[in-house]
Amino acid sequence: MNLTVYLAGEIHTNWREELEEQAKKLKLPLTFVAPQTNHDRSDNVGEDILGTQPRKVYKDDAASDINNFRTTVLMQKADIVIALFGEQYKQWNTAMDLSTAVALNKPTILIRPDSLIHPLKELSNKANVTVENVEQALEVLKYVYE
Amino acid sequence: MNLTVYLAGEIHTNWREELEEQAKKLKLPLTFVAPQTNHDRSDNVGEDILGTQPRKVYKDDAASDINNFRTTVLMQKADIVIALFGEQYKQWNTAMDLSTAVALNKPTILIRPDSLIHPLKELSNKANVTVENVEQALEVLKYVYE
Amino acid sequence: MNLTVYLAGEIHTNWREELEEQAKKLKLPLTFVAPQTNHDRSDNVGEDILGTQPRKVYKDDAASDINNFRTTVLMQKADIVIALFGEQYKQWNTAMDLSTAVALNKPTILIRPDSLIHPLKELSNKANVTVENVEQALEVLKYVYE
Amino acid sequence: MNLTVYLAGEIHTNWREELEEQAKKLKLPLTFVAPQTNHDRSDNVGEDILGTQPRKVYKDDAASDINNFRTTVLMQKADIVIALFGEQYKQWNTAMDLSTAVALNKPTILIRPDSLIHPLKELSNKANVTVENVEQALEVLKYVYE
Amino acid sequence: MNLTVYLAGEIHTNWREELEEQAKKLKLPLTFVAPQTNHDRSDNVGEDILGTQPRKVYKDDAASDINNFRTTVLMQKADIVIALFGEQYKQWNTAMDLSTAVALNKPTILIRPDSLIHPLKELSNKANVTVENVEQALEVLKYVYE
Amino acid sequence: MNLTVYLAGEIHTNWREELEEQAKKLKLPLTFVAPQTNHDRSDNVGEDILGTQPRKVYKDDAASDINNFRTTVLMQKADIVIALFGEQYKQWNTAMDLSTAVALNKPTILIRPDSLIHPLKELSNKANVTVENVEQALEVLKYVYE
Amino acid sequence: MNLTVYLAGEIHTNWREELEEQAKKLKLPLTFVAPQTNHDRSDNVGEDILGTQPRKVYKDDAASDINNFRTTVLMQKADIVIALFGEQYKQWNTAMDLSTAVALNKPTILIRPDSLIHPLKELSNKANVTVENVEQALEVLKYVYE
Amino acid sequence: MNLTVYLAGEIHTNWREELEEQAKKLKLPLTFVAPQTNHDRSDNVGEDILGTQPRKVYKDDAASDINNFRTTVLMQKADIVIALFGEQYKQWNTAMDLSTAVALNKPTILIRPDSLIHPLKELSNKANVTVENVEQALEVLKYVYE
Repeated sequence: MNLTVYLAGEIHTNWREELEEQAKKLKLPLTFVAPQTNHDRSDNVGEDILGTQPRKVYKDDAASDINNFRTTVLMQKADIVIALFGEQYKQWNTAMDLSTAVALNKPTILIRPDSLIHPLKELSNKANVTVENVEQALEVLKYVYE
Repeated sequence: MNLTVYLAGEIHTNWREELEEQAKKLKLPLTFVAPQTNHDRSDNVGEDILGTQPRKVYKDDAASDINNFRTTVLMQKADIVIALFGEQYKQWNTAMDLSTAVALNKPTILIRPDSLIHPLKELSNKANVTVENVEQALEVLKYVYE
Repeated sequence: MNLTVYLAGEIHTNWREELEEQAKKLKLPLTFVAPQTNHDRSDNVGEDILGTQPRKVYKDDAASDINNFRTTVLMQKADIVIALFGEQYKQWNTAMDLSTAVALNKPTILIRPDSLIHPLKELSNKANVTVENVEQALEVLKYVYE
Repeated sequence: MNLTVYLAGEIHTNWREELEEQAKKLKLPLTFVAPQTNHDRSDNVGEDILGTQPRKVYKDDAASDINNFRTTVLMQKADIVIALFGEQYKQWNTAMDLSTAVALNKPTILIRPDSLIHPLKELSNKANVTVENVEQALEVLKYVYE
Repeated sequence: MNLTVYLAGEIHTNWREELEEQAKKLKLPLTFVAPQTNHDRSDNVGEDILGTQPRKVYKDDAASDINNFRTTVLMQKADIVIALFGEQYKQWNTAMDLSTAVALNKPTILIRPDSLIHPLKELSNKANVTVENVEQALEVLKYVYE
Repeated sequence: MNLTVYLAGEIHTNWREELEEQAKKLKLPLTFVAPQTNHDRSDNVGEDILGTQPRKVYKDDAASDINNFRTTVLMQKADIVIALFGEQYKQWNTAMDLSTAVALNKPTILIRPDSLIHPLKELSNKANVTVENVEQALEVLKYVYE
Repeated sequence: MNLTVYLAGEIHTNWREELEEQAKKLKLPLTFVAPQTNHDRSDNVGEDILGTQPRKVYKDDAASDINNFRTTVLMQKADIVIALFGEQYKQWNTAMDLSTAVALNKPTILIRPDSLIHPLKELSNKANVTVENVEQALEVLKYVYE
Repeated sequence: MNLTVYLAGEIHTNWREELEEQAKKLKLPLTFVAPQTNHDRSDNVGEDILGTQPRKVYKDDAASDINNFRTTVLMQKADIVIALFGEQYKQWNTAMDLSTAVALNKPTILIRPDSLIHPLKELSNKANVTVENVEQALEVLKYVYE
């Protein structure tokens, strides 16, 4: 049974590559998709496609149109959503992707460091499973195929 | 990841062929579907299949039954809906297809010329992305696979 | 049984007032809601609330945000949607409101003049009832309470 | 037409009272609901009701159960959701409430200061309307009743 | 707790009046709605409102538009659907109303005479409760309030 | 694009085989499914599997459990539903299957002889397309692939 | 804000009366509904209404039709579902009511004694809040109105 | 037509292997999935993945997170759900899985021994088909492909 997994969150480390590689080694029949992980491309895609905008707010607006289009397409195809929060940044898109998945009744895994237990307590409570690291998330995925 | 794209709108230019050809060159794994683009066939299909009707309004009614059947089948299979408005005609079916896609939570791209910015402002606001031409729409599709 | 009726379409004649008055005379327990019918207010509401925008396209975008917010609130409360097309203008918002109502499974009445039979044939086919004038639409509403 | 408005977000200023008071002055028939705005009560409600927990993480877990129960009940009754982001804190619950409302097709207003335009661009894009302050949000609510 | 009950089926006997009267005597807080029970009015309503049609099939089509509009409005407001089959006629609208209610997850009661057990076996199986007469249906309604 | 077509209705003629054969000749990529068309098997399946029942009504009940299980599985996989009414019998399962398909927003075709125009007028009005014979239904299916 | 609370579970103690009385004292605007709590009536209602059945299994089947009709009507009107498991009996209807509520996205509270922690762990995990006694459940309801 | 069948219930006998083997012999194109059937693994999976927990209740909670994640993923992919109750144990997860499937409109088969007819009467009534043993369930599956 092939399953598609959407990997939301943190784009400044290579946790997605790690997870995909481990899954491959275990021969889990998983396809991984994700939001745009190239930060610059994600910020500039509006102007890249539609041309220069008159102000920063319009540049942001143009980019967010296209980023949301992308994530909506991919999340609708996903059977599982994993969201990883890192120690830094606002990460509101991670919260948005995870909340959207929960509201769409997609099974979800939240990965968060200990330091974020308190501020993420309600989101953690809505996710099916909360783990501390990528290895544990992989264990949970593997458990589906046992 | 294969995606099906429904191409609503304008049937008097060859923008669909253009878009499909470009997508093929880029090897994007996309399947394109569309409403009936042969205007005469679309107008006559009711009488073609059910026989002559007593008045023009019944001819139209018979055709619209079958056109709506077709578009409903195809739109339900679509992962993405693109709607192109041209400068001419009422184009109410284009508005209908795009609005239906939005209401069904299908990700959408609106292509419109500058001259139609004002009358299409609410529809544009409901679409995920609004662009000015087919090339830009292709760029957005490509972005999903980056 | 109180019912709420959303009156989409044509904003340059007083058909809504007419319909509401007739319904009142018949003591039908109906509440009527509608999109913004003051054309200038509808065009300017974005700048009225958010301040001057750098270009016309952004003024339109700001207005459409707020107009769509309004119509979404009201249509979600509606039990019935009536859409009237006049002879003039693009009227894409009328097509949008009617198509949205159909997709949400709201019972719908389309009012259209004879001259628009052909271009509105697919929308007419999706509506529950198509009539030629406001009096007939009122008759249909009355029929619900017989 | 009575409408229920859920006020998500920032709990360290009195913006809710302000908005409610202004709405009352204007005699808008609105009922306002909100998440628990007493920060301590919100953090402690799990132990307040279920007794002392063995570790901080379990205290948080118990509290989040009950906070999510409360917000789910109230948001399901809401016709409109307004979310206000302030300059401080992670505010992941605000992002969660707004994203949930969008996914449930509830009409939404986002209030954000200029400084947060960039990190909130995708959430802003999903909300129906984005404004800068409470007064503007009130204007949008008023517009529904014009 | 007020409940609205849609009474589908047989229009040539006065079972609806009977049921309503009994419910009134028991002071059950029920509101009853129904399809058009005046057979002639139901057959002619299309021409009554829209004028003479060129052929019988178009007269039927016009009437069915308006009958379906009416039943859709009323069934969407119903909490419970009761369908009574009599010994005569095709009664396909009764089957349609009951099947629609089941598909919309409305709680349903089927009333059928012994002679129709076999041809109605699949519909009976989809309804929540099958009874033989109006008195038993009333008993089931009463049970909700015990 | 492969599509699955559920063929409801009449089980005493070989219209399904005809339609399937014609579709094959045209190389339409269609898969056909249907309710149990062996009348005896359909009537007896309850006792065939569960053993003799104490009365006819329980035999019918046992059969209908299993028949409804079958049709629910198959209809949920169908992209299109075609229902054919013949001149004879009550055919309430045909009405049930078609109404269920309409309520589930499946695109539908109704095939009915002229003699049934009047009693089927409301069902015909809910179907997307109404035709008089199997050949016309095939034409409509073919039109989806033009 | 009035809320309707469905009280599933244990019918051999008077926990419902207790909870209702306490809620009344606190003037919480709650309406309580429940499955049939008279065990004999619940077991016999099928024969009470439909007459003697040929075997025990058919008596049970007749009763369950009517019990499920009742609970479906009431649960669809409920804003909140509370389920109490006692120490005795199979209590599969309690599990069924709670699971149904969760699947319908109704906010839920589970009340269970310590002795049932292990066998109810997956159901507890699906409920929003798990408490040990009726007083705690009342505290959670009260919290919604703080 | 390939179908996926979720096998809920009893994990202390080998009924799943039996059923799968028989299905294979009959060349039915079925894929079978199930909850974790290794009782110890199911009880310990929380600590296996997340490490030792401070108390038994937290160990159970951690395990149930991951078990529910697994069953949600698999049930969402299932076209059919079969639930088998044995003579022993509480089996609340079996009731939960079956009730969830019914609420999601999945076609369902309940397998129960005679001794459980009475306590399972309402669940049996919600399932599409109730049988007494695995062989009969297989017969029902086979019937779909006749």
